[in-house]
Amino acid sequence: MTYSYLSHLHCPKCHTKYDASQIQQLCVCGSPLLVDYDLERLAQEVKREDVAARRPDLWRYHELLPVQSEANVVSLGEGMTPLIPVPTLGADMGIENLYMKDEGIIPTGSFKARGAAVGVSRAKELGVEEFAMPTNGNAGAAWALYAARAGIRSTIVMPVDAPKITRNECAVSGANLVLVDGLISDAGKIVARAVQEFGLFDGSTLKEPYRIEGKKTMGIEIAEQFGWDVPDVILYPTGGGVGLIGIHKALKELQTIGWIPADCKLPRLVAVQSEGCAPIVKAWEEKRKDSEFFENSETIAFGINVPKALGDFLVLEALYETEGCAIAISDEELLREQATTARLEGAFVCPEGAAVFAAARTLRASGWIAEGERVVVLNTGAGIKYPDTVSAEVPVLQPEDSLTR
Amino acid sequence: MTYSYLSHLHCPKCHTKYDASQIQQLCVCGSPLLVDYDLERLAQEVKREDVAARRPDLWRYHELLPVQSEANVVSLGEGMTPLIPVPTLGADMGIENLYMKDEGIIPTGSFKARGAAVGVSRAKELGVEEFAMPTNGNAGAAWALYAARAGIRSTIVMPVDAPKITRNECAVSGANLVLVDGLISDAGKIVARAVQEFGLFDGSTLKEPYRIEGKKTMGIEIAEQFGWDVPDVILYPTGGGVGLIGIHKALKELQTIGWIPADCKLPRLVAVQSEGCAPIVKAWEEKRKDSEFFENSETIAFGINVPKALGDFLVLEALYETEGCAIAISDEELLREQATTARLEGAFVCPEGAAVFAAARTLRASGWIAEGERVVVLNTGAGIKYPDTVSAEVPVLQPEDSLTR
Repeated sequence: MTYSYLSHLHCPKCHTKYDASQIQQLCVCGSPLLVDYDLERLAQEVKREDVAARRPDLWRYHELLPVQSEANVVSLGEGMTPLIPVPTLGADMGIENLYMKDEGIIPTGSFKARGAAVGVSRAKELGVEEFAMPTNGNAGAAWALYAARAGIRSTIVMPVDAPKITRNECAVSGANLVLVDGLISDAGKIVARAVQEFGLFDGSTLKEPYRIEGKKTMGIEIAEQFGWDVPDVILYPTGGGVGLIGIHKALKELQTIGWIPADCKLPRLVAVQSEGCAPIVKAWEEKRKDSEFFENSETIAFGINVPKALGDFLVLEALYETEGCAIAISDEELLREQATTARLEGAFVCPEGAAVFAAARTLRASGWIAEGERVVVLNTGAGIKYPDTVSAEVPVLQPEDSLTR
Repeated sequence: MTYSYLSHLHCPKCHTKYDASQIQQLCVCGSPLLVDYDLERLAQEVKREDVAARRPDLWRYHELLPVQSEANVVSLGEGMTPLIPVPTLGADMGIENLYMKDEGIIPTGSFKARGAAVGVSRAKELGVEEFAMPTNGNAGAAWALYAARAGIRSTIVMPVDAPKITRNECAVSGANLVLVDGLISDAGKIVARAVQEFGLFDGSTLKEPYRIEGKKTMGIEIAEQFGWDVPDVILYPTGGGVGLIGIHKALKELQTIGWIPADCKLPRLVAVQSEGCAPIVKAWEEKRKDSEFFENSETIAFGINVPKALGDFLVLEALYETEGCAIAISDEELLREQATTARLEGAFVCPEGAAVFAAARTLRASGWIAEGERVVVLNTGAGIKYPDTVSAEVPVLQPEDSLTR
């Protein structure tokens, strides 16, 4: 029984191959590395029916993940998040078949747990004892907590404006937490200098090749949850874009191994950004292959405040290949959509997830999403991590008071 | 195909039977009502293997739940939360086989989602259009959000000291939210007066019979996750005690239908309370059948600040029947245990869950938990809902600064 069909790493830019049994970071050419599997052998030896009876977490797909030995798996039960029909909200925006993949129902309350589970497990397997990383909050929280479970030391650098609760998660895990009076790009530079100076493993987004493998399980789960079929459109809030790259990679791997038809039309992937930070949208509109640094970025959807993503070219490639698109949403629109989603469906989504619902509404109104299409919205985190997005002015009674109507 | 084997309701005190097809609240004798099923027919017609391939949520046990028609199910994907081995923490307290059932990985971030999903679904099925309920925060948040999805109006009354984030959840759902400068018992009195005056459905804990059916799925899941076996001990943070009553009910039902052996020794159930609010512990120590109002109750584990539970006699019965016990933990102990759990296992548990880990440590030290026993701790919610239980003093750098070692 082969636990993982991992074969090697490769550079999507200069096509150099790398040994996956060694710790690797970026390609010498500066590009992120991607993980390859022996998909031919996997297709012969593993059937999609084999996973049906496994535990409902992302490790049910372990053959398509990089961890070689189950003993190295660091898991808190992440994955197989619900895919929920949201028909009332769908009717409200004219999308009959609207679904929410709810990534708030996961350890640490955000989809970052997927990348952390697989990234930390693989780091442990390769002997990493300490890492540093910049974060907009949720990724750092997830990596800090999974690192604690793995017995790995971590240094997390996040902007002072990152969601407060993610500080607590890092602090309670015992991580070395540092704030920076700036953006995630500033945190990244501080981490880069520390990595250089102290010889640490660099856990930055896409500077290690394995978190993308965790994120890709969102794509595998969507296919399995549709009965090994795919929807027409998947919308994803795009900061670093790892999830979108991962979903695209997953669906192509599933085609290769025949778990979904090799000739099926892949879902059109949509990168949703904020008007206050829309480098991918700008690049897509200009039909470019990569993005430029987005100056003075600012948005309430803090997780997608990423002015320049290292994997921008992979995100754009996924959009072009699937005939998807990129779209920017204002903070006002997303806050309105967050309230609508809660009121109509009882789902308290994060601001990034709300931006994606708003994007679905806009794309349906413009006709880009056609009548009857099956549309999946990724809600990347729990609304409870963002208390400041909701204001509650509430009357206070004394015990002897009565309610009025 | 019978979706639910619901037969009727009965009073556990005076044994009066009630028609389940009508809206029912308390028994005329003042006791909560319990739900009965046609377990004989269920045992003949449904096998435990039948549920294996179903979706990983609590509705996989729909035959043992009260909702008659699948069309009335109001679900956000709740249930089948992970049962996670916590071996490092276990070793630290001398419990070799320690598991955490993590109820933070659920919509609304607390186990209250189970009661809300089943309670609201059944209320919808019975035609309820509006309800009122008192809450210590999490239950109200869950009921408000599920009610929004069901299209039912809700009035939620909670203490001013309840976790702030639960206010936001109620507010964003569109519920009618009111605070009271007092305890949940004061909120309960305000709700009782409003129910009387305006003819509302009373959603108070155990004043409607169905939330307990949602909570009992924790017990069914534990059995299924152990391969239709049971652990030796289950520890549960006890406020209203509905989960403990539900787990006990579930395990007895599973014995009756033969999904676990009819003659197996049921787990010893442990009610964990706070030293600042320990009415069940006091009653148990005095070998009483019910509890007395606990004066001036106060604890940081807000969810278990319930000075007098309506179902106290059912909780105590479950403890006596299973040879379990009741134990109180100080706020200092639980805060220390919360930090230990995060540092050793990467699990950021809620204060109530932390109290239960502390109780396991104490009971192992005293020998009440024996060497080698399989012990399950219920973590009833996500730590991220309680930011004030962790303090993070963090250095702030400027972008040009460097990390030091």
